[in-house]
Amino acid sequence: MSTTSRLVEVRQNVMKHNDVLARALRRRFEAENIYVVSIVSSPGSGKTAFLERTLTMLRDRYCVAALVGDLATENDSTRLARSQVPVKQITTGTICHLDAQMVESALAGWQPSKLDYLFVENVGNLVCPSSYDLGENLRLVLMSVTEGEDKPLKYPTIFNTADVAIITKMDLTAAAEFDLELACANIQAVRPGMPILHVSAKRGDGFEEWLDFVQARRERFCAATVE
Amino acid sequence: MSTTSRLVEVRQNVMKHNDVLARALRRRFEAENIYVVSIVSSPGSGKTAFLERTLTMLRDRYCVAALVGDLATENDSTRLARSQVPVKQITTGTICHLDAQMVESALAGWQPSKLDYLFVENVGNLVCPSSYDLGENLRLVLMSVTEGEDKPLKYPTIFNTADVAIITKMDLTAAAEFDLELACANIQAVRPGMPILHVSAKRGDGFEEWLDFVQARRERFCAATVE
Repeated sequence: MSTTSRLVEVRQNVMKHNDVLARALRRRFEAENIYVVSIVSSPGSGKTAFLERTLTMLRDRYCVAALVGDLATENDSTRLARSQVPVKQITTGTICHLDAQMVESALAGWQPSKLDYLFVENVGNLVCPSSYDLGENLRLVLMSVTEGEDKPLKYPTIFNTADVAIITKMDLTAAAEFDLELACANIQAVRPGMPILHVSAKRGDGFEEWLDFVQARRERFCAATVE
Repeated sequence: MSTTSRLVEVRQNVMKHNDVLARALRRRFEAENIYVVSIVSSPGSGKTAFLERTLTMLRDRYCVAALVGDLATENDSTRLARSQVPVKQITTGTICHLDAQMVESALAGWQPSKLDYLFVENVGNLVCPSSYDLGENLRLVLMSVTEGEDKPLKYPTIFNTADVAIITKMDLTAAAEFDLELACANIQAVRPGMPILHVSAKRGDGFEEWLDFVQARRERFCAATVE
Protein backbone atom coordinates (compact mmCIF):
# COMPACT_ATOMS: atom_id res chain seq x y z
CA MET A 1 0.00 0.00 0.00
CA SER A 2 1.43 3.43 -0.88
CA THR A 3 2.11 6.06 1.78
CA THR A 4 -0.70 8.20 0.38
CA SER A 5 -3.32 5.45 0.45
CA ARG A 6 -2.26 4.56 3.99
CA LEU A 7 -2.77 8.22 4.90
CA VAL A 8 -6.25 8.12 3.36
CA GLU A 9 -7.10 4.98 5.33
CA VAL A 10 -5.87 6.34 8.67
CA ARG A 11 -7.61 9.65 8.00
CA GLN A 12 -10.90 7.80 7.36
CA ASN A 13 -10.55 6.15 10.77
CA VAL A 14 -9.96 9.53 12.40
CA MET A 15 -13.10 10.86 10.69
CA LYS A 16 -15.13 7.89 11.84
CA HIS A 17 -13.90 8.41 15.40
CA ASN A 18 -14.81 12.12 15.14
CA ASP A 19 -18.31 11.32 13.89
CA VAL A 20 -18.96 9.02 16.85
CA LEU A 21 -17.86 11.71 19.30
CA ALA A 22 -19.85 14.41 17.48
CA ARG A 23 -23.02 12.31 17.62
CA ALA A 24 -22.58 11.88 21.37
CA LEU A 25 -22.07 15.65 21.75
CA ARG A 26 -25.21 16.35 19.71
CA ARG A 27 -27.30 14.02 21.89
CA ARG A 28 -25.93 15.73 24.99
CA PHE A 29 -26.73 19.21 23.64
CA GLU A 30 -30.26 18.05 22.80
CA ALA A 31 -30.73 16.56 26.28
CA GLU A 32 -29.57 19.83 27.84
CA ASN A 33 -31.55 21.98 25.37
CA ILE A 34 -28.48 23.89 24.21
CA TYR A 35 -28.58 25.25 20.67
CA VAL A 36 -25.06 25.07 19.24
CA VAL A 37 -23.94 27.29 16.38
CA SER A 38 -20.50 26.91 14.79
CA ILE A 39 -18.79 29.46 12.58
CA VAL A 40 -16.27 28.76 9.81
CA SER A 41 -14.53 31.16 7.42
CA SER A 42 -11.17 32.27 6.03
CA PRO A 43 -8.80 34.01 8.41
CA GLY A 44 -9.85 37.66 8.66
CA SER A 45 -13.44 37.32 7.43
CA GLY A 46 -14.75 38.83 10.63
CA LYS A 47 -15.83 35.78 12.68
CA THR A 48 -14.83 37.35 15.99
CA ALA A 49 -16.46 40.73 15.31
CA PHE A 50 -19.63 38.95 14.18
CA LEU A 51 -19.62 36.80 17.29
CA GLU A 52 -18.90 39.69 19.66
CA ARG A 53 -21.92 41.63 18.44
CA THR A 54 -24.11 38.49 18.45
CA LEU A 55 -23.17 37.61 22.05
CA THR A 56 -23.68 41.20 23.21
CA MET A 57 -27.15 41.37 21.63
CA LEU A 58 -28.25 37.95 22.96
CA ARG A 59 -26.87 38.08 26.50
CA ASP A 60 -29.74 40.07 28.09
CA ARG A 61 -32.36 37.59 26.96
CA TYR A 62 -30.49 34.27 26.99
CA CYS A 63 -27.70 32.34 28.67
CA VAL A 64 -24.96 32.31 26.04
CA ALA A 65 -21.32 31.19 25.94
CA ALA A 66 -18.63 30.68 23.32
CA LEU A 67 -15.70 28.43 22.51
CA VAL A 68 -13.12 29.95 20.21
CA GLY A 69 -10.46 28.04 18.28
CA ASP A 70 -7.11 29.37 17.16
CA LEU A 71 -3.67 28.02 16.29
CA ALA A 72 -1.97 30.48 18.64
CA THR A 73 -2.76 33.49 20.88
CA GLU A 74 -5.77 34.16 23.07
CA ASN A 75 -6.59 37.39 21.19
CA ASP A 76 -10.07 36.26 20.22
CA SER A 77 -11.16 35.17 23.69
CA THR A 78 -9.82 38.47 25.04
CA ARG A 79 -11.87 40.36 22.43
CA LEU A 80 -14.95 38.25 23.10
CA ALA A 81 -14.64 38.75 26.86
CA ARG A 82 -15.83 42.32 26.18
CA SER A 83 -19.25 40.84 25.45
CA GLN A 84 -19.32 39.77 29.14
CA VAL A 85 -20.38 36.20 28.48
CA PRO A 86 -18.35 33.08 29.38
CA VAL A 87 -15.73 32.45 26.67
CA LYS A 88 -13.13 29.69 26.48
CA GLN A 89 -10.20 29.50 24.07
CA ILE A 90 -9.16 26.27 22.36
CA THR A 91 -5.56 26.60 21.17
CA THR A 92 -4.89 24.02 18.46
CA GLY A 93 -1.13 24.53 17.92
CA THR A 94 -0.50 23.51 14.32
CA ILE A 95 -3.87 21.80 13.79
CA CYS A 96 -5.91 23.51 11.11
CA HIS A 97 -9.44 22.84 12.42
CA LEU A 98 -11.44 22.04 15.55
CA ASP A 99 -12.67 18.51 16.09
CA ALA A 100 -15.31 16.98 18.36
CA GLN A 101 -12.70 15.82 20.88
CA MET A 102 -11.42 19.39 21.34
CA VAL A 103 -14.98 20.64 21.92
CA GLU A 104 -15.66 17.87 24.43
CA SER A 105 -12.41 18.54 26.32
CA ALA A 106 -13.06 22.28 26.39
CA LEU A 107 -16.51 21.71 27.89
CA ALA A 108 -15.21 19.33 30.59
CA GLY A 109 -15.35 21.11 33.92
CA TRP A 110 -16.22 24.44 32.32
CA GLN A 111 -19.65 24.29 30.69
CA PRO A 112 -21.74 27.10 32.19
CA SER A 113 -25.04 25.68 33.41
CA LYS A 114 -28.40 26.03 31.68
CA LEU A 115 -27.05 27.49 28.45
CA ASP A 116 -29.51 28.48 25.75
CA TYR A 117 -26.87 29.02 23.07
CA LEU A 118 -23.29 27.86 22.67
CA PHE A 119 -21.26 29.40 19.84
CA VAL A 120 -18.14 27.69 18.50
CA GLU A 121 -15.73 29.76 16.40
CA ASN A 122 -13.49 27.51 14.31
CA VAL A 123 -9.89 28.14 13.21
CA GLY A 124 -9.77 30.45 10.17
CA ASN A 125 -9.65 27.99 7.27
CA LEU A 126 -12.00 27.56 4.33
CA VAL A 127 -10.99 23.96 3.61
CA CYS A 128 -10.23 21.60 6.49
CA PRO A 129 -13.01 22.41 9.03
CA SER A 130 -15.58 21.21 6.49
CA SER A 131 -14.75 17.57 7.27
CA TYR A 132 -15.26 17.72 11.05
CA ASP A 133 -18.71 17.50 12.62
CA LEU A 134 -18.61 19.27 16.00
CA GLY A 135 -22.08 18.19 17.12
CA GLU A 136 -23.46 21.62 16.27
CA ASN A 137 -27.09 22.30 15.26
CA LEU A 138 -26.27 25.09 12.84
CA ARG A 139 -23.08 25.77 10.90
CA LEU A 140 -22.48 29.23 9.49
CA VAL A 141 -19.97 29.92 6.73
CA LEU A 142 -18.87 33.56 6.65
CA MET A 143 -17.29 35.33 3.67
CA SER A 144 -16.38 39.01 3.61
CA VAL A 145 -17.04 41.35 0.70
CA THR A 146 -13.28 41.88 0.28
CA GLU A 147 -12.62 38.22 -0.55
CA GLY A 148 -14.26 38.28 -3.96
CA GLU A 149 -17.53 36.88 -5.30
CA ASP A 150 -16.02 33.60 -6.51
CA LYS A 151 -15.18 32.01 -3.15
CA PRO A 152 -18.24 29.68 -3.09
CA LEU A 153 -17.20 28.25 -6.48
CA LYS A 154 -13.59 27.83 -5.40
CA TYR A 155 -14.31 26.33 -1.96
CA PRO A 156 -17.55 24.40 -2.61
CA THR A 157 -17.14 21.78 0.14
CA ILE A 158 -17.31 24.26 3.00
CA PHE A 159 -20.46 25.80 1.51
CA ASN A 160 -21.94 22.34 1.08
CA THR A 161 -21.34 21.36 4.70
CA ALA A 162 -22.64 24.64 6.17
CA ASP A 163 -26.31 25.53 6.71
CA VAL A 164 -26.26 29.30 6.25
CA ALA A 165 -23.97 31.71 4.37
CA ILE A 166 -23.30 35.08 5.97
CA ILE A 167 -21.69 37.83 3.93
CA THR A 168 -19.72 40.11 6.26
CA LYS A 169 -18.13 43.59 6.16
CA MET A 170 -20.99 44.98 4.07
CA ASP A 171 -19.75 48.48 5.03
CA LEU A 172 -16.81 47.85 2.63
CA THR A 173 -19.05 46.89 -0.33
CA ALA A 174 -18.39 50.05 -2.35
CA ALA A 175 -14.66 50.27 -1.53
CA ALA A 176 -14.18 46.61 -2.50
CA GLU A 177 -16.44 46.95 -5.59
CA PHE A 178 -18.27 43.84 -4.38
CA ASP A 179 -21.13 42.47 -6.49
CA LEU A 180 -23.64 41.08 -3.96
CA GLU A 181 -25.95 39.68 -6.61
CA LEU A 182 -23.13 37.71 -8.26
CA ALA A 183 -21.90 36.38 -4.89
CA CYS A 184 -25.43 35.19 -4.01
CA ALA A 185 -25.78 33.55 -7.43
CA ASN A 186 -22.47 31.73 -6.86
CA ILE A 187 -23.62 30.49 -3.44
CA GLN A 188 -26.89 29.27 -4.96
CA ALA A 189 -25.00 27.57 -7.80
CA VAL A 190 -23.02 25.52 -5.28
CA ARG A 191 -25.83 25.02 -2.76
CA PRO A 192 -29.31 25.73 -4.16
CA GLY A 193 -31.69 27.09 -1.51
CA MET A 194 -29.01 28.02 1.01
CA PRO A 195 -30.18 30.88 3.26
CA ILE A 196 -27.96 33.96 2.83
CA LEU A 197 -27.73 36.87 5.24
CA HIS A 198 -25.54 39.99 4.97
CA VAL A 199 -24.19 41.99 7.85
CA SER A 200 -21.77 44.67 8.95
CA ALA A 201 -20.50 43.95 12.45
CA LYS A 202 -18.97 47.42 12.49
CA ARG A 203 -22.25 49.26 11.81
CA GLY A 204 -24.72 46.61 12.99
CA ASP A 205 -26.53 46.26 9.64
CA GLY A 206 -28.33 42.95 9.24
CA PHE A 207 -28.05 41.83 12.87
CA GLU A 208 -31.77 42.07 13.62
CA GLU A 209 -32.45 39.73 10.68
CA TRP A 210 -29.68 37.38 11.81
CA LEU A 211 -30.97 37.25 15.41
CA ASP A 212 -34.55 36.67 14.21
CA PHE A 213 -33.23 33.85 12.05
CA VAL A 214 -31.20 32.09 14.75
CA GLN A 215 -33.94 32.51 17.38
CA ALA A 216 -36.51 30.95 15.03
CA ARG A 217 -34.14 28.05 14.39
CA ARG A 218 -33.59 27.59 18.13
CA GLU A 219 -37.35 27.60 18.81
CA ARG A 220 -37.81 24.89 16.20
CA PHE A 221 -34.97 22.89 17.83
CA CYS A 222 -36.48 23.25 21.32
CA ALA A 223 -39.94 22.24 20.07
CA ALA A 224 -38.44 19.13 18.42
CA THR A 225 -36.45 18.04 21.50
CA VAL A 226 -39.56 18.38 23.76
CA GLU A 227 -41.64 16.14 21.50
CA MET B 1 -1.06 2.74 19.00
CA SER B 2 -3.99 5.20 18.96
CA THR B 3 -5.59 6.33 15.72
CA THR B 4 -4.23 9.83 16.24
CA SER B 5 -0.63 8.74 16.78
CA ARG B 6 -0.89 6.46 13.73
CA LEU B 7 -2.08 9.50 11.76
CA VAL B 8 0.92 11.50 13.01
CA GLU B 9 3.28 8.69 11.99
CA VAL B 10 1.83 8.26 8.50
CA ARG B 11 1.74 12.04 8.06
CA GLN B 12 5.46 12.23 8.94
CA ASN B 13 6.17 9.69 6.21
CA VAL B 14 4.18 11.75 3.71
CA MET B 15 6.19 14.84 4.71
CA LYS B 16 9.47 12.97 4.32
CA HIS B 17 8.39 11.78 0.88
CA ASN B 18 7.43 15.36 -0.03
CA ASP B 19 10.80 16.70 1.14
CA VAL B 20 12.67 14.21 -1.05
CA LEU B 21 10.61 15.21 -4.10
CA ALA B 22 10.97 18.93 -3.29
CA ARG B 23 14.75 18.63 -3.06
CA ALA B 24 14.85 16.95 -6.47
CA LEU B 25 12.68 19.73 -7.91
CA ARG B 26 14.95 22.39 -6.40
CA ARG B 27 18.04 20.78 -7.94
CA ARG B 28 16.27 20.63 -11.29
CA PHE B 29 15.24 24.31 -11.11
CA GLU B 30 18.84 25.25 -10.25
CA ALA B 31 20.21 23.21 -13.13
CA GLU B 32 17.77 24.93 -15.50
CA ASN B 33 18.33 28.36 -13.93
CA ILE B 34 14.64 28.86 -13.16
CA TYR B 35 13.83 31.09 -10.18
CA VAL B 36 10.70 29.71 -8.52
CA VAL B 37 8.47 31.89 -6.38
CA SER B 38 5.51 30.44 -4.49
CA ILE B 39 2.62 32.40 -3.01
CA VAL B 40 0.52 31.46 0.02
CA SER B 41 -2.31 33.37 1.72
CA SER B 42 -5.88 33.12 2.97
CA PRO B 43 -8.61 32.78 0.36
CA GLY B 44 -9.37 36.23 -1.02
CA SER B 45 -6.13 37.99 -0.01
CA GLY B 46 -5.45 38.90 -3.61
CA LYS B 47 -2.93 36.28 -4.75
CA THR B 48 -4.28 36.13 -8.28
CA ALA B 49 -4.50 39.92 -8.75
CA PHE B 50 -0.95 40.26 -7.39
CA LEU B 51 0.28 37.53 -9.72
CA GLU B 52 -1.52 38.91 -12.79
CA ARG B 53 0.15 42.30 -12.41
CA THR B 54 3.54 40.70 -11.67
CA LEU B 55 3.39 38.46 -14.76
CA THR B 56 2.26 41.34 -16.96
CA MET B 57 5.13 43.56 -15.76
CA LEU B 58 7.79 40.84 -16.11
CA ARG B 59 6.78 39.26 -19.43
CA ASP B 60 8.50 41.75 -21.73
CA ARG B 61 11.89 41.26 -20.13
CA TYR B 62 11.78 37.62 -19.03
CA CYS B 63 10.34 34.21 -19.86
CA VAL B 64 7.75 33.69 -17.15
CA ALA B 65 5.07 31.09 -16.43
CA ALA B 66 2.72 30.18 -13.59
CA LEU B 67 1.14 27.17 -11.93
CA VAL B 68 -2.03 27.90 -10.00
CA GLY B 69 -3.61 25.64 -7.40
CA ASP B 70 -7.27 25.53 -6.46
CA LEU B 71 -9.75 23.04 -4.99
CA ALA B 72 -12.20 23.59 -7.82
CA THR B 73 -12.74 25.81 -10.89
CA GLU B 74 -10.26 27.14 -13.40
CA ASN B 75 -11.19 30.76 -12.62
CA ASP B 76 -7.67 31.75 -11.62
CA SER B 77 -5.93 30.34 -14.68
CA THR B 78 -8.56 32.05 -16.84
CA ARG B 79 -7.84 35.36 -15.09
CA LEU B 80 -4.08 34.85 -15.33
CA ALA B 81 -4.32 34.02 -19.03
CA ARG B 82 -4.97 37.74 -19.51
CA SER B 83 -1.31 38.31 -18.66
CA GLN B 84 -0.48 36.37 -21.86
CA VAL B 85 2.07 34.07 -20.26
CA PRO B 86 1.80 30.27 -20.04
CA VAL B 87 -0.41 29.30 -17.08
CA LYS B 88 -1.42 25.84 -15.91
CA GLN B 89 -4.10 25.03 -13.33
CA ILE B 90 -3.63 22.35 -10.66
CA THR B 91 -7.04 21.29 -9.35
CA THR B 92 -6.63 19.63 -5.95
CA GLY B 93 -10.20 18.44 -5.30
CA THR B 94 -10.58 18.38 -1.53
CA ILE B 95 -6.85 18.69 -0.76
CA CYS B 96 -6.06 21.86 1.13
CA HIS B 97 -2.54 22.55 -0.20
CA LEU B 98 -0.17 21.91 -3.09
CA ASP B 99 2.62 19.38 -2.65
CA ALA B 100 5.84 18.68 -4.56
CA GLN B 101 4.27 15.76 -6.42
CA MET B 102 1.52 17.99 -7.83
CA VAL B 103 4.10 20.52 -9.01
CA GLU B 104 6.19 17.79 -10.63
CA SER B 105 3.14 16.27 -12.37
CA ALA B 106 1.97 19.67 -13.61
CA LEU B 107 5.38 20.36 -15.14
CA ALA B 108 5.55 16.98 -16.89
CA GLY B 109 5.09 17.52 -20.60
CA TRP B 110 4.20 21.16 -20.12
CA GLN B 111 7.15 23.12 -18.79
CA PRO B 112 7.79 26.00 -21.19
CA SER B 113 11.46 26.01 -22.18
CA LYS B 114 14.10 28.38 -20.88
CA LEU B 115 12.03 29.92 -18.16
CA ASP B 116 13.53 32.70 -16.06
CA TYR B 117 10.74 32.71 -13.48
CA LEU B 118 8.10 30.19 -12.48
CA PHE B 119 5.38 31.38 -10.08
CA VAL B 120 3.32 28.88 -8.08
CA GLU B 121 0.07 30.10 -6.51
CA ASN B 122 -1.00 27.80 -3.69
CA VAL B 123 -4.54 26.96 -2.56
CA GLY B 124 -5.96 29.73 -0.32
CA ASN B 125 -5.12 28.49 3.17
CA LEU B 126 -3.08 30.10 5.92
CA VAL B 127 -2.34 26.83 7.73
CA CYS B 128 -1.69 23.66 5.75
CA PRO B 129 0.57 24.89 2.89
CA SER B 130 3.21 25.84 5.48
CA SER B 131 4.23 22.18 5.86
CA TYR B 132 4.89 21.44 2.19
CA ASP B 133 8.15 22.39 0.49
CA LEU B 134 7.50 22.83 -3.25
CA GLY B 135 11.15 23.21 -4.25
CA GLU B 136 10.69 26.97 -4.55
CA ASN B 137 13.47 29.53 -4.05
CA LEU B 138 11.28 32.20 -2.52
CA ARG B 139 8.01 31.83 -0.64
CA LEU B 140 5.75 34.85 -0.27
CA VAL B 141 3.00 35.09 2.33
CA LEU B 142 0.33 37.63 1.43
CA MET B 143 -2.11 39.24 3.84
CA SER B 144 -4.63 41.91 2.91
CA VAL B 145 -5.36 45.03 4.93
CA THR B 146 -8.94 43.84 5.44
CA GLU B 147 -7.89 40.72 7.36
CA GLY B 148 -6.72 42.56 10.48
CA GLU B 149 -3.29 43.30 11.91
CA ASP B 150 -3.18 40.21 14.17
CA LYS B 151 -2.92 37.51 11.50
CA PRO B 152 0.86 36.97 11.89
CA LEU B 153 0.36 36.30 15.63
CA LYS B 154 -2.54 33.95 14.99
CA TYR B 155 -0.94 32.02 12.11
CA PRO B 156 2.77 32.10 13.07
CA THR B 157 3.82 28.91 11.24
CA ILE B 158 3.03 30.22 7.78
CA PHE B 159 4.97 33.41 8.49
CA ASN B 160 7.86 31.36 9.81
CA THR B 161 8.05 29.19 6.70
CA ALA B 162 7.79 32.10 4.24
CA ASP B 163 10.64 34.39 3.17
CA VAL B 164 8.80 37.64 2.50
CA ALA B 165 5.52 39.14 3.75
CA ILE B 166 3.47 41.16 1.29
CA ILE B 167 0.61 43.30 2.55
CA THR B 168 -2.00 43.60 -0.20
CA LYS B 169 -5.04 45.78 -1.01
CA MET B 170 -3.32 48.90 0.35
CA ASP B 171 -5.98 50.94 -1.50
CA LEU B 172 -8.45 49.75 1.19
CA THR B 173 -6.25 50.88 4.12
CA ALA B 174 -8.47 53.79 5.16
CA ALA B 175 -11.79 52.00 4.60
CA ALA B 176 -10.58 49.01 6.64
CA GLU B 177 -8.98 51.27 9.31
CA PHE B 178 -5.83 49.18 8.94
CA ASP B 179 -2.82 49.99 11.15
CA LEU B 180 0.23 49.24 8.95
CA GLU B 181 2.73 49.94 11.72
CA LEU B 182 1.03 47.47 14.07
CA ALA B 183 0.83 44.79 11.36
CA CYS B 184 4.56 45.19 10.60
CA ALA B 185 5.38 45.00 14.33
CA ASN B 186 3.35 41.77 14.56
CA ILE B 187 5.20 40.27 11.59
CA GLN B 188 8.54 41.22 13.15
CA ALA B 189 7.46 39.76 16.50
CA VAL B 190 6.86 36.39 14.84
CA ARG B 191 9.77 36.53 12.39
CA PRO B 192 12.39 39.17 13.25
CA GLY B 193 14.05 40.62 10.15
CA MET B 194 11.44 39.39 7.66
CA PRO B 195 11.28 41.67 4.59
CA ILE B 196 7.86 43.32 4.26
CA LEU B 197 6.47 44.93 1.13
CA HIS B 198 3.09 46.58 0.64
CA VAL B 199 1.18 46.78 -2.60
CA SER B 200 -2.12 47.55 -4.26
CA ALA B 201 -2.65 45.34 -7.28
CA LYS B 202 -5.62 47.51 -8.24
CA ARG B 203 -3.62 50.77 -8.38
CA GLY B 204 -0.12 49.37 -8.90
CA ASP B 205 1.38 50.90 -5.73
CA GLY B 206 4.50 49.11 -4.53
CA PHE B 207 5.03 46.97 -7.63
CA GLU B 208 8.27 48.68 -8.70
CA GLU B 209 9.74 47.91 -5.25
CA TRP B 210 8.48 44.32 -5.43
CA LEU B 211 9.93 43.75 -8.90
CA ASP B 212 13.28 45.30 -7.87
CA PHE B 213 13.27 42.97 -4.88
CA VAL B 214 12.50 39.76 -6.79
CA GLN B 215 14.91 40.60 -9.61
CA ALA B 216 17.73 41.20 -7.10
CA ARG B 217 16.95 37.86 -5.47
CA ARG B 218 16.97 36.12 -8.83
CA GLU B 219 20.31 37.68 -9.78
CA ARG B 220 21.78 36.41 -6.53
CA PHE B 221 20.34 32.95 -7.27
CA CYS B 222 21.78 32.91 -10.82
CA ALA B 223 25.20 34.05 -9.59
CA ALA B 224 25.21 31.26 -6.99
CA THR B 225 24.19 28.54 -9.44
CA VAL B 226 26.93 29.58 -11.91
CA GLU B 227 29.67 29.36 -9.26
